[in-house]
Amino acid sequence: MSAAGMNGTCPPGGPEDRAARVALTWLAEPGNRAVWTLVHQAGAPATLDRLLSGDIPDARLRGAVAARSAAGDPRRMAEIVLRRADRLGARLVVPADDEWPRRVADLAAMEMDTGGRINSDIRPPLCFWVRGPWPLGETLERSVAIIGARAATSYGIHVTGELAAGISKSGWTVLSGGAFGIDAAAHRGAISGGGRTVAVLACGIDRPYPAGNTALFDRIADTGLLISEWPIGAEPLRHRFLIRNRVIAAATAGTVVVEAAARSGAAQTMSRVLALDRPAMVVPGPVTSAMSVGCHEILRNNPYARVVTSAGEVLEEIGRIGEYYAETPRGPERRHDHLDEETALVLEALPRNGSVTPEQVAAEARLNLRTVLRRLSLLEIAGLVARTGDGVALAHVSGRNRHDAG
Amino acid sequence: MSAAGMNGTCPPGGPEDRAARVALTWLAEPGNRAVWTLVHQAGAPATLDRLLSGDIPDARLRGAVAARSAAGDPRRMAEIVLRRADRLGARLVVPADDEWPRRVADLAAMEMDTGGRINSDIRPPLCFWVRGPWPLGETLERSVAIIGARAATSYGIHVTGELAAGISKSGWTVLSGGAFGIDAAAHRGAISGGGRTVAVLACGIDRPYPAGNTALFDRIADTGLLISEWPIGAEPLRHRFLIRNRVIAAATAGTVVVEAAARSGAAQTMSRVLALDRPAMVVPGPVTSAMSVGCHEILRNNPYARVVTSAGEVLEEIGRIGEYYAETPRGPERRHDHLDEETALVLEALPRNGSVTPEQVAAEARLNLRTVLRRLSLLEIAGLVARTGDGVALAHVSGRNRHDAG
Repeated sequence: MSAAGMNGTCPPGGPEDRAARVALTWLAEPGNRAVWTLVHQAGAPATLDRLLSGDIPDARLRGAVAARSAAGDPRRMAEIVLRRADRLGARLVVPADDEWPRRVADLAAMEMDTGGRINSDIRPPLCFWVRGPWPLGETLERSVAIIGARAATSYGIHVTGELAAGISKSGWTVLSGGAFGIDAAAHRGAISGGGRTVAVLACGIDRPYPAGNTALFDRIADTGLLISEWPIGAEPLRHRFLIRNRVIAAATAGTVVVEAAARSGAAQTMSRVLALDRPAMVVPGPVTSAMSVGCHEILRNNPYARVVTSAGEVLEEIGRIGEYYAETPRGPERRHDHLDEETALVLEALPRNGSVTPEQVAAEARLNLRTVLRRLSLLEIAGLVARTGDGVALAHVSGRNRHDAG
Repeated sequence: MSAAGMNGTCPPGGPEDRAARVALTWLAEPGNRAVWTLVHQAGAPATLDRLLSGDIPDARLRGAVAARSAAGDPRRMAEIVLRRADRLGARLVVPADDEWPRRVADLAAMEMDTGGRINSDIRPPLCFWVRGPWPLGETLERSVAIIGARAATSYGIHVTGELAAGISKSGWTVLSGGAFGIDAAAHRGAISGGGRTVAVLACGIDRPYPAGNTALFDRIADTGLLISEWPIGAEPLRHRFLIRNRVIAAATAGTVVVEAAARSGAAQTMSRVLALDRPAMVVPGPVTSAMSVGCHEILRNNPYARVVTSAGEVLEEIGRIGEYYAETPRGPERRHDHLDEETALVLEALPRNGSVTPEQVAAEARLNLRTVLRRLSLLEIAGLVARTGDGVALAHVSGRNRHDAG
């Protein structure tokens, strides 16, 4: 199951693999191309041995490893970190675990056309530290990132809250960073919508940054997930936010930027979202607002970035890519909620038993075929409709009558 | 020069041609496909003869002509209208005239995919009534349409004023309708920018509608142009605004929508702009504003519609299509104003004499080549730079030193 190579004495997911991944993340920043490539080829324990022996072709990595090793024995640091995490109620998730999120693997093949250091260190995470009650992979499977400026305006905060609540009510997870402004508004909106929210930190999850959001972080750990690639104790250094951003882009089904200043980090995240072929969505704003300049820049510079103005449009954009994420259907009491009128008409037009063609649905619902296809896509994602050999049919996942959905 | 067929006794542009075009516009609404096709094949006088003889295959047109003829003799009406126009200081412009605007001919080939009546009557104008001191064709050659809602917000009014003033200062004509809201703000902004503005009416230019804009219309007729396809005395009927919109789309180098409600007339105009392969530009706004819903709809429904946030971006979009409209260069005192920093750097990087390659300009200006190419394109449109066999050179249109441009 793991992307890492097999090793007879140190099976992926075993104690040695886990400790080696923690030590490697302590030695070099997550996303490091050379480290990830070695782990992919030889496994984490062998990579750790090799790095500690000084056999490192990459000069920059060799320097970093030497500096970190001088500060402490990486294997000993890993032990300490694992013990402290256990006391904090945090768990380590590695690629061999069932709850490893599958989408981050796409970072293995992502290429960025800029040659800078941050853009070269974009490989998949070696591990995640996780606090919260939900399985990580299942929670991220149906997730949307909402990102934006710390110095958000009341407009941005309001729109973010509405978007996040709508996404959350539709049974999708909201994911964001931990910053003030748009990030915090996204988590609060998702919590108010009754769904899960995930904060991806750029520091140890023992000390989520900024401290001003501590009460919010505690609430996220109770109702959603706090996650980080960095070991317990890691500081929120500036460059780590840029490294972290690749996980926001890769772990979700799509990313929405609500407000961003000119040449902001949001543009960098969006370029990764686009490089990963995920929906890159932008909320426009007043052209007179400095906090919308970055949003409009992204729209002007990326023909594939799309304007979105509501949670419904966000879900439509995600449905557009035609992926099927309903591996973890929610209970029917969630999935039937908040259908818009057209979606309800499409659902009503499906026979209780047997399958029909989308054209038949369109005729019955008196909607045009394009609308019907989009709505069917959303209903399929929601687990309410299934494709059959010759058309579509109601998915009978529970004993409930379809009229519950009206 | 005329699109109309030649006729030995009635040369295009002669008195019979002119009177027949006025009579035809009085008999049938402008844009009528059947009338335009007959005029194109046989000329206006022969078409008028044929329509008045009742030899009309199109049943709808036959009905309209019969109803109008019963209200008065079309030839007599044309005489009256031409005499009244002369007293009002308005002139008739027909395709054979030097000042006929060349771009509206593109309506001859435009096809819309919707089958409605308004969308079928999209053929070129037969004539324009014009009030104002400038040649019509030259004025429209370098023009941008700014359109939007009557019930504009203060945000829309402000942004429109800034856009129109910037476009006007760059030596481009602003064109709009005559309505309250965005239209009026566009004209006011253009006048404040010191340039020409053109109001395209959907009624006779003796009675520009709405009357509340009378002072503005008088100012437009003094400093720019008031134009209409409808004869003196024509009422501003509702459907005429939709017919008029095709001229807004076709007469300009590109169209900007600033504010629009959901499913507004602006969306119809923009679909024509796109059908004509002209830049369709949209100013975004708060997603919480009902007056920006139409703008965001246009962006979501048309992948080729582009976000613009400033006059500079509007001119860049128009420059992007690579057309060269600088047939009527303004005086250098106009053209050097308001260069942005990058454009000024590019201009500074050009030698006083001789030509250089864009790559040399990029090296000298320390800008990337893509930026340099875009700025050179704008400077070329502005008449400040000329292409040479092996590169680009300063255009020496006046004796002034290039440092005036800094």
